Amino acid sequence: MKFVRYGEAGQEKPGLIDSEGRIRDLSAHVPDIAGATLDPAALAKLSGLDATALPLVAEGTRLGPCVAGVGKFICIGLNFSDHAAESGMEMPPEPVVFMKATSAIAGPYDNVPIPRGSTKTDWEVELAVVIGRSAKYVSQDEAMDYVAGYCVCHDVSEREFQLERVGQWTKGKSCDGFGPIGPWLATKQAIPDPHNLGMWLKVNGATMQNGSTKTMVYGVAYLVSYLSQFMSLHPGDIISTGTPPGVGLGFKPPRYLKAGDVVELGIEGLGSQKQTFVPDL
Amino acid sequence: MKFVRYGEAGQEKPGLIDSEGRIRDLSAHVPDIAGATLDPAALAKLSGLDATALPLVAEGTRLGPCVAGVGKFICIGLNFSDHAAESGMEMPPEPVVFMKATSAIAGPYDNVPIPRGSTKTDWEVELAVVIGRSAKYVSQDEAMDYVAGYCVCHDVSEREFQLERVGQWTKGKSCDGFGPIGPWLATKQAIPDPHNLGMWLKVNGATMQNGSTKTMVYGVAYLVSYLSQFMSLHPGDIISTGTPPGVGLGFKPPRYLKAGDVVELGIEGLGSQKQTFVPDL
Repeated sequence: MKFVRYGEAGQEKPGLIDSEGRIRDLSAHVPDIAGATLDPAALAKLSGLDATALPLVAEGTRLGPCVAGVGKFICIGLNFSDHAAESGMEMPPEPVVFMKATSAIAGPYDNVPIPRGSTKTDWEVELAVVIGRSAKYVSQDEAMDYVAGYCVCHDVSEREFQLERVGQWTKGKSCDGFGPIGPWLATKQAIPDPHNLGMWLKVNGATMQNGSTKTMVYGVAYLVSYLSQFMSLHPGDIISTGTPPGVGLGFKPPRYLKAGDVVELGIEGLGSQKQTFVPDL
Repeated sequence: MKFVRYGEAGQEKPGLIDSEGRIRDLSAHVPDIAGATLDPAALAKLSGLDATALPLVAEGTRLGPCVAGVGKFICIGLNFSDHAAESGMEMPPEPVVFMKATSAIAGPYDNVPIPRGSTKTDWEVELAVVIGRSAKYVSQDEAMDYVAGYCVCHDVSEREFQLERVGQWTKGKSCDGFGPIGPWLATKQAIPDPHNLGMWLKVNGATMQNGSTKTMVYGVAYLVSYLSQFMSLHPGDIISTGTPPGVGLGFKPPRYLKAGDVVELGIEGLGSQKQTFVPDL
C-alpha cells in the first residue's frame, strides 16, 4: 500500500495511491499519516481497505511530505563505500549519524529554495526508513518490527555550510526545503528487500546518480538497532540511510545547483520526486 | 512572568509560578506553553493576568519541560572561550552548531538514565533561548523580536558517544533524558540582560561549574540572527547557548557521572534543576 499526504502545505490530508495511480482520500479512516497510524499493525489494517471505495482526490492536487509529526530526521553519512571515496573520506568503522532540522521537510515536488549566499547546493538521493513503533535497545533481529515502511528522501546539502563553516554538518543540511520526502510511504510488506533497490538522480535530465541500495554498508535492521542504543526512536522518526556515488561534490571540478535547475530522483518501488531549485528571496 | 508545565510526563498542563513560588493553573487561558502562546505579544498579554485569581496547583506536583512542541533543539558548541580551552579545542571562528534529539527533552527534576554502555556521562549547564515567532534571515538588530524568553538547559553529554564513536556529536547528545529544560520559562522582559547571569552546577553538592553568561562569545541576538541564515526558526525551537568551564571532560583525569550521583544546576533568574542519575535498565 502507498500512503500519501495531499493538499496545501500545512493543511495536508491522508490518502493513498490506488492501483491506477490516483489519489484516494483516507481522512475518514485516520487523522493523518503520523503517530499511531504508523504502527505496523495499524498500517496492515489500512492495507485491507478497498481503495476503490474511497473518495477520489482531484488530479493535480499537490502531494506533501508523505509522513507528518516527524520528531527526528536522522541521517547516516558515508553509508555507501563508493560515495565515501568520491567525497575524499574514509569509510567509517561505524555509522556516522547527524540530524537534519525537521523544518527542512518538504513535499516531493515542491520548489527548493537555494539559501542566500549559497554557492554549493548539492543533491543526494536516499532511501528513508520510517519508524512505526517506539524502539529502544532493540536487537537487529527484532528491529524490523519497529519499521513502518520506506520512502524516497532528497538529502539536499549545502557543502560550504556543511564542511567549510566550522564544526558539525547541521548548518548545511537543515535549510528550508532541504528534505523532500515522498511521494509515498510504502509499507515494509510492499518492499520485501530494501537492500536491492535501484536508485537514481538526474539534473536537468542528465543522470548523476545511478546506484542501488545493494551497496549500502549498514543495512536497515542494523541502523534501527544501532540508533536505538543511543536514543529512543518514535513513530514518524525518519532515518535517511545515505547516498550512492554521483553527488556534485564528487565531480572534478565539483558541480552545484543553480536557480532554474530541475532535479528528478527516484527509488525502485518508491516512486520519484521532481524539484525546481529557485532563489530564496 | 515564569511559565511552567506541570503534571505527569506527557500529560503536562500550562501554569505559572506566582510571587510566592506556588504553581498556578493557566489551562483556562492557553492550551499549552507552546506554538502561538510563545509569541512575545501573547506572552505579554498573559503576563497581565492576576496570578492570585488562578487556581492553585497541589504542592509537590511534578514540573515537566517548561516548553512543549519543540521542533528543533539546537545547541552551540564551545561558546565560552575558557570551556573550549578545557576541552582541548580551539575557539571556533564562527558558532559550532549541532542538534540534540527533541526526544531527549525532560523535566528539570526528572531522573536521568545513564545509557547502557556509557562510561563518560558528563554535565553542562547552559542558558537556553526559546524562540517565540518564526524567524528567517533576521538581522541582529531585529533578532530579539523573535525571542520568547529563556530557561535553564542541562546539555547532558556522553563523551565517548560524542567524540570517540565516529563522526558527528549527535550520538552523545541525544540520549533519552539528556535535555532537561526548566524549571520555568522566563519572558525576555523578565531577563533584561541575558549576558550577565551567574550560572553554576554542583555534583553531589560540590561545585563543578561556576561561571557567567558574561563570558559567552556569541550572544543571544547574534545566535538567533546567525542561525536564521541557515534555517527558519519556529516558535518553541530552543537554542542552548553553550557551557562555561568545569565539565567532567575538563578535569585531569576526567570525572564522569555514575548511578546515584545528584546534579544540581541553575542560572540567575531562571531557577535551578536537580537530577539523580540512574541506570537505564
